[in-house]
Amino acid sequence: MFDKFKDECGVIGIYNHKEAANIAYLGLHALQHRGQESAGIVSSDGASLYSHKGMGLVSDIFTKRELKAMPGSSAIGHVRYSTAGGSHIKNAQPFLVDYSRGSIAIAHNGNLVNAGHLRDELEAYGSIFQSDMDTEAIVHLIASSKENELVDRLSYALGRVKGSYSLVVLTEKRLIAARDPHGFRPLVLGRLKGSWIVASETCAFDLIEAEYVREIEPGEILVIDDNGTTSHKPYEKRRYTPCIFEHIYFARPDSNVFGVNVYEVRKNFGRELAKEHPVEADIVIPVPDSGVGAAIGYAEASKIPFEMGIVRSHYVGRTFIEPRDSIRNFGVKLKLNAIGDFIKGKRVVVVDDSIVRGTTSRKIVRMIRDAGAKEVHMRISSPPTLASCFYGIDTPTSGELIAANHSVEEINRYISSDTLAYISVKGLYRAVGREEDSFCDACFTGKYPVEIPSKRVPPQMVLFK
Amino acid sequence: MFDKFKDECGVIGIYNHKEAANIAYLGLHALQHRGQESAGIVSSDGASLYSHKGMGLVSDIFTKRELKAMPGSSAIGHVRYSTAGGSHIKNAQPFLVDYSRGSIAIAHNGNLVNAGHLRDELEAYGSIFQSDMDTEAIVHLIASSKENELVDRLSYALGRVKGSYSLVVLTEKRLIAARDPHGFRPLVLGRLKGSWIVASETCAFDLIEAEYVREIEPGEILVIDDNGTTSHKPYEKRRYTPCIFEHIYFARPDSNVFGVNVYEVRKNFGRELAKEHPVEADIVIPVPDSGVGAAIGYAEASKIPFEMGIVRSHYVGRTFIEPRDSIRNFGVKLKLNAIGDFIKGKRVVVVDDSIVRGTTSRKIVRMIRDAGAKEVHMRISSPPTLASCFYGIDTPTSGELIAANHSVEEINRYISSDTLAYISVKGLYRAVGREEDSFCDACFTGKYPVEIPSKRVPPQMVLFK
Amino acid sequence: MFDKFKDECGVIGIYNHKEAANIAYLGLHALQHRGQESAGIVSSDGASLYSHKGMGLVSDIFTKRELKAMPGSSAIGHVRYSTAGGSHIKNAQPFLVDYSRGSIAIAHNGNLVNAGHLRDELEAYGSIFQSDMDTEAIVHLIASSKENELVDRLSYALGRVKGSYSLVVLTEKRLIAARDPHGFRPLVLGRLKGSWIVASETCAFDLIEAEYVREIEPGEILVIDDNGTTSHKPYEKRRYTPCIFEHIYFARPDSNVFGVNVYEVRKNFGRELAKEHPVEADIVIPVPDSGVGAAIGYAEASKIPFEMGIVRSHYVGRTFIEPRDSIRNFGVKLKLNAIGDFIKGKRVVVVDDSIVRGTTSRKIVRMIRDAGAKEVHMRISSPPTLASCFYGIDTPTSGELIAANHSVEEINRYISSDTLAYISVKGLYRAVGREEDSFCDACFTGKYPVEIPSKRVPPQMVLFK
Amino acid sequence: MFDKFKDECGVIGIYNHKEAANIAYLGLHALQHRGQESAGIVSSDGASLYSHKGMGLVSDIFTKRELKAMPGSSAIGHVRYSTAGGSHIKNAQPFLVDYSRGSIAIAHNGNLVNAGHLRDELEAYGSIFQSDMDTEAIVHLIASSKENELVDRLSYALGRVKGSYSLVVLTEKRLIAARDPHGFRPLVLGRLKGSWIVASETCAFDLIEAEYVREIEPGEILVIDDNGTTSHKPYEKRRYTPCIFEHIYFARPDSNVFGVNVYEVRKNFGRELAKEHPVEADIVIPVPDSGVGAAIGYAEASKIPFEMGIVRSHYVGRTFIEPRDSIRNFGVKLKLNAIGDFIKGKRVVVVDDSIVRGTTSRKIVRMIRDAGAKEVHMRISSPPTLASCFYGIDTPTSGELIAANHSVEEINRYISSDTLAYISVKGLYRAVGREEDSFCDACFTGKYPVEIPSKRVPPQMVLFK
Repeated sequence: MFDKFKDECGVIGIYNHKEAANIAYLGLHALQHRGQESAGIVSSDGASLYSHKGMGLVSDIFTKRELKAMPGSSAIGHVRYSTAGGSHIKNAQPFLVDYSRGSIAIAHNGNLVNAGHLRDELEAYGSIFQSDMDTEAIVHLIASSKENELVDRLSYALGRVKGSYSLVVLTEKRLIAARDPHGFRPLVLGRLKGSWIVASETCAFDLIEAEYVREIEPGEILVIDDNGTTSHKPYEKRRYTPCIFEHIYFARPDSNVFGVNVYEVRKNFGRELAKEHPVEADIVIPVPDSGVGAAIGYAEASKIPFEMGIVRSHYVGRTFIEPRDSIRNFGVKLKLNAIGDFIKGKRVVVVDDSIVRGTTSRKIVRMIRDAGAKEVHMRISSPPTLASCFYGIDTPTSGELIAANHSVEEINRYISSDTLAYISVKGLYRAVGREEDSFCDACFTGKYPVEIPSKRVPPQMVLFK
Repeated sequence: MFDKFKDECGVIGIYNHKEAANIAYLGLHALQHRGQESAGIVSSDGASLYSHKGMGLVSDIFTKRELKAMPGSSAIGHVRYSTAGGSHIKNAQPFLVDYSRGSIAIAHNGNLVNAGHLRDELEAYGSIFQSDMDTEAIVHLIASSKENELVDRLSYALGRVKGSYSLVVLTEKRLIAARDPHGFRPLVLGRLKGSWIVASETCAFDLIEAEYVREIEPGEILVIDDNGTTSHKPYEKRRYTPCIFEHIYFARPDSNVFGVNVYEVRKNFGRELAKEHPVEADIVIPVPDSGVGAAIGYAEASKIPFEMGIVRSHYVGRTFIEPRDSIRNFGVKLKLNAIGDFIKGKRVVVVDDSIVRGTTSRKIVRMIRDAGAKEVHMRISSPPTLASCFYGIDTPTSGELIAANHSVEEINRYISSDTLAYISVKGLYRAVGREEDSFCDACFTGKYPVEIPSKRVPPQMVLFK
Repeated sequence: MFDKFKDECGVIGIYNHKEAANIAYLGLHALQHRGQESAGIVSSDGASLYSHKGMGLVSDIFTKRELKAMPGSSAIGHVRYSTAGGSHIKNAQPFLVDYSRGSIAIAHNGNLVNAGHLRDELEAYGSIFQSDMDTEAIVHLIASSKENELVDRLSYALGRVKGSYSLVVLTEKRLIAARDPHGFRPLVLGRLKGSWIVASETCAFDLIEAEYVREIEPGEILVIDDNGTTSHKPYEKRRYTPCIFEHIYFARPDSNVFGVNVYEVRKNFGRELAKEHPVEADIVIPVPDSGVGAAIGYAEASKIPFEMGIVRSHYVGRTFIEPRDSIRNFGVKLKLNAIGDFIKGKRVVVVDDSIVRGTTSRKIVRMIRDAGAKEVHMRISSPPTLASCFYGIDTPTSGELIAANHSVEEINRYISSDTLAYISVKGLYRAVGREEDSFCDACFTGKYPVEIPSKRVPPQMVLFK
Repeated sequence: MFDKFKDECGVIGIYNHKEAANIAYLGLHALQHRGQESAGIVSSDGASLYSHKGMGLVSDIFTKRELKAMPGSSAIGHVRYSTAGGSHIKNAQPFLVDYSRGSIAIAHNGNLVNAGHLRDELEAYGSIFQSDMDTEAIVHLIASSKENELVDRLSYALGRVKGSYSLVVLTEKRLIAARDPHGFRPLVLGRLKGSWIVASETCAFDLIEAEYVREIEPGEILVIDDNGTTSHKPYEKRRYTPCIFEHIYFARPDSNVFGVNVYEVRKNFGRELAKEHPVEADIVIPVPDSGVGAAIGYAEASKIPFEMGIVRSHYVGRTFIEPRDSIRNFGVKLKLNAIGDFIKGKRVVVVDDSIVRGTTSRKIVRMIRDAGAKEVHMRISSPPTLASCFYGIDTPTSGELIAANHSVEEINRYISSDTLAYISVKGLYRAVGREEDSFCDACFTGKYPVEIPSKRVPPQMVLFK
């Protein structure tokens, strides 16, 4: 389904390319699905860093003029998810500051669960924060570290934070990529002739015709400079628990994530779902675009014809004016429309990737019924979403998650489908071809790989040991 | 395929709705695929007309503030296609003027082939034109008509123009819909409780939950005012030749156009294509989004699995910066990406709706090959495009149309596919279920229903008989 | 005083200068005091006309980029007065249109009293107006004229209009300057090496270092082209009645207007005023800036020291936020401040150029009293303003003119000065050194040189004789 | 003269007024002459601080909407001088940050001579600076202070800085005003019914009708909160050396600065100048506006008539396009024009406030000569400017100051006046009525009250004693 989750950010880094800012720009374009609220690029010419950030889409923020004003052969970039209220340019990344050792810029995908603690500590020692981002704590930790070498300062800083991070860091002379020990969020390394590329997803490599090399490993700090790449692993090993939702919803189907192709995984989800929850029907239709892969898999396994029975508009803007005398299903209809003359009289299987609050699914079922469907069978290519995410996905609180408080049958009644079924957790792992617990599946099981502290406890005054 | 043709415009009209401007806005949103260059709305409160127009998308041009400033219970709206150079706000519609009888606004989908002649004549008598639009000639003809009644002035004006038009006209007290005698472009009438709606496509009715009533007939002038609707047919009947390209490419698949559903017609094109041009292959993939319907039809008829093997980006902006050391296929790759790991080693049928210059198809074929396809078979759901359109579609001149100057085999070699095949003209008519010559198919056959005058001949001084 | 009248417009024209648009820009800068609402320039390169217009000040509207985009060796420009409501870019000048003979642009200072009649006539024959400007009637008359030569078309058009006009007209090949037979508004001709310049005031010549040649004569149409200048006087001679208010308030003191220097005339007004209305006082202060010249003259003749006792702010913008619990005199205090410690205990003569509604004078008197003045004697360097202007000055209607309905003594009481005195009409003529009735003094006497028609009578259908 | 010095900033503060942001806005309008580059306001509602800043003039940056969004009963504001290159929104003030104790905003007029040292020290301990402003060092010192009370933290911070400052500081609950021990820049306290006002100049009080109470004393920290005002003087007393240039050029003539009225002081400068350097002439004219007071004083003392012989344009924008074939004196002529017909044949005394580089004076003399003057005698109401300012005035380096390297006679020849004379330092003190050395006159004498460190020495690591 669309816009269900505010996505979580995408990052790109490039080293040793004469058009570094342009490449970063293209990479961000390919990663645009990971964040549409703001975007930014910082480049380095070996002596100074150059920054441009803005609210909105990459193609609106950057024109030839802005990109021309960003010289240098290395660059990092960031796209940030869209939120309703707290969005502000000061929270756009990369986050660039001057400190005693020069300039440093950082772009972060993930979420630090102890950011509040760290901020309290740092402020107690006189630090002044510029933004509301958890990412800023990392920068202040680097600035206040007693270490001399940048990589040691960064190791110190990342050793103090808890949570998820896939980072790219740029200084005058270096590009650094780092991924948290659990490897929650993806981060991959590529090669473009003599240049190194780091990106959230491989689809960025496809666009710029870079070659995939490998994943940045969980707990790895990879330093790229004129001496080549140097890999550091300063922390003890943790259980590798990448985010299963990247496969279900976030990543682009043309990306390979955590080593496998997303489109194929999604088709497998659909096949598995068809096996677990078959139904007699005339057509299988996806909720476009995120349900497409699973719907094709479901159709294949069930032998029911796949049809593109819902049309998606490409032109949905931000503010829409609802007639006062408002129409049912309105919000959904601006984006989706069921093909009336085609659906009329048919028994329809609708495949979607997930249900969050249930309100949208309810509108979609009603839209299909209004179009004349005889039966509507909803099939979901993920298990019921029971728990909030603390590692970078902006899910609602449990109170708002319909599956946290209702049985599948209750949800079926609420969304008014004839039948409703979710893939099982076991089926999910079968589809992705790995054993259970080998992903972070906290949103389906409530089992969190990293403990979540309560919010904003008093500072512990242990900053400088 | 995408953006192949600059589309041709969409129009909407509403009479007797307390939120007329809002409804026009929603209708334009549903018609946005027909034009992305500019948009505008004119409303009437019975005494005055209110106008707002801008460059860009409907959702960018209109905010609550603009819509609030447009009172009244009737309104018309227009979206205009996107061009590279000559685009200018003065050419945005609706075109609104004051003349001796009050105010009049007009929104036009189509193209007048004798606009140059008419302008020369009118200027010779002292008229001063404000824009470069052919539409403006209609307004000056209305202003200089000797008739007393608006409908007679409009009949006079439309009697003097040649070409294609689907029009909505708004005055202080009336909404008028008119369609040229050949009925080139679509125009449909709907009902929303006590209101009348006129729109280019039925998908606009779906969004605002209006009911489809009928098509505005070729040659009909339909006046809507407080006395209800009055139909006028002042001209002699001509052959009805609606535009076949609406079915092939322009219209949304969820619209019914010229009486039939577009998605079903497109699936028929695909089925017919599979019968005419079968091939052994592993998968059928569409060029998204316009090739989807035909690809599903092709897959069904050929029993080869349908797959969404190419991913389309939703975030393509206007200006993209190409790296100097430019990459093959770049322009296409910003919008489309073949799923490498999935396509590798497969024999692929690619279905697209048409080939214009051939350059884009060539890039798409290469992209699929680069992704590792073993064979690439291109199938086109329209016959070779041989001739330019003079009735509202902004096609290239014949010199640029690859099929105007090359055989299918030559095109196959140029785009470097293993095989290439187009649906036949006969197959096209079979698929749409009507007899030959019952559409304007000039772009495939060169047979133009209305004669095309040479450009800007001297004025004939016959304006005021 | 400041902003008392919305000024009336300024025009500039240049022929045969390789940087014509730049020169027009500089000329408009020098004429900026004549209008701050909008500005525009049209240039010609001999084949096409190029236009740029905008709302606001010349220096905000034009940047290097805009001026670079205006090629050619001739140009005209216009600045327009500032009004509260009806201001709109469509009413900005120069007014540029295409008609049967090519392109024509016009910039107009003045006011046509029969513009409504003409518009009704022209619209009855099918003309469509684009703006609300009276100037547009001239253009439609040119477009619909039966004459062949441009100068004859213009003579026909100007022969049909009544009122005041100082015009510059630009076509592909010609610059034309024209002034109405009464010569209400100024228009002067200058020479800059091989170029011809036409401007509203000589201060524009000073800036671009052009040499003053002569006034454009009342009733003259001066055609400037590659054959040099040709003077036409197609109309019968009328009484020459230039606007006395140019000397009192409009023109810059460094301009020579109607043959004499404005600063010297203003000093004479002050000397005459001192003779007619002496008073015992300690200091003479002007209301800056328009009262400065007269105050210096008054001080000289009365032997009372001139002091700059009121300071004027240079930074007054458009919108000011008044505290709710509002302060007396607020509007005036944003612009003017009396020097408290200096004025305290003194008997003060305040010299201003005119009183319109009386509200501002009342605030100024109060401000001076609040600053501690012992006595405040108001002296006005023009006679009481009794009647509205129909020839280009945007005065209030008679109902709002305080002097139209109150005696000098009543006004004195209203504005709460100790004494109030105006220069007499005879004194005014003595000061300017010409005999009575040799200016248009309708605003002081109610005697209008050109009859004022009642508004919008029915069209007379005599347009095409 | 105009724009000779980039001015130095103006500050305003208000406590306990229900429209605090509006009052700050009006106060900034009155102080606009002290800085036109940027402006900002921060307000407090007792719980949070609200900020709005922008580049440009106060009236452009703030509209009703912005001011409405700034609730609360206390506020501070700042206007900043205009520079060519380094101007950037991040350097606009008030500077607002969150730190461990809450929020704090600061607006600063002056210049810290040891800001570089402090920044190096603070960064070495991990502080991250957000701007290039010296003011930011104060904020970091406050944040890293070990003291508990805000006033003690501020005392600590101000005890570490050297140079000039007139500050207003705002927290959730308090407004604080502080002035450096030498009292370089002005800062005054006023009362508006129940509210306290702090401002750079008294002209801000006049506009908002506040009553002048007293100067903030040199070395005073005045805390204003719900308990009233509390004055702190934590530092040992220094010699009081206010800036004499406030009287010569910066302050508005309607302000009282350092206890005396600026207009009267400027007239005294002119009288003294006439006594020291008399000359036979026909008229005395000022270079408007800053030379007006001194010219009136010169005319009075010399009995030569004062005339406004140069007209100043009120509409000078930022970018002006010079014709390539450029005209002498162009830059000056856009702003000033000598009244030709009036000046012709006269012997002219021109009074200006200072000469910096000499280029502008040269252009003015030439302009007056071109207007026809028989003789031009330049009189300057300040002594020769020999040395740069380090306490808040953006003067050129000594190398560019013409008087630093040339005798008066050499300057006279360079600017091509018939005679040139400056007031003496003794005359300056006589005019202002205080004994020598009672002002900072370093720009005329090179004697700096506070030692100027060389730039950016290594950090001394003494931050936390």
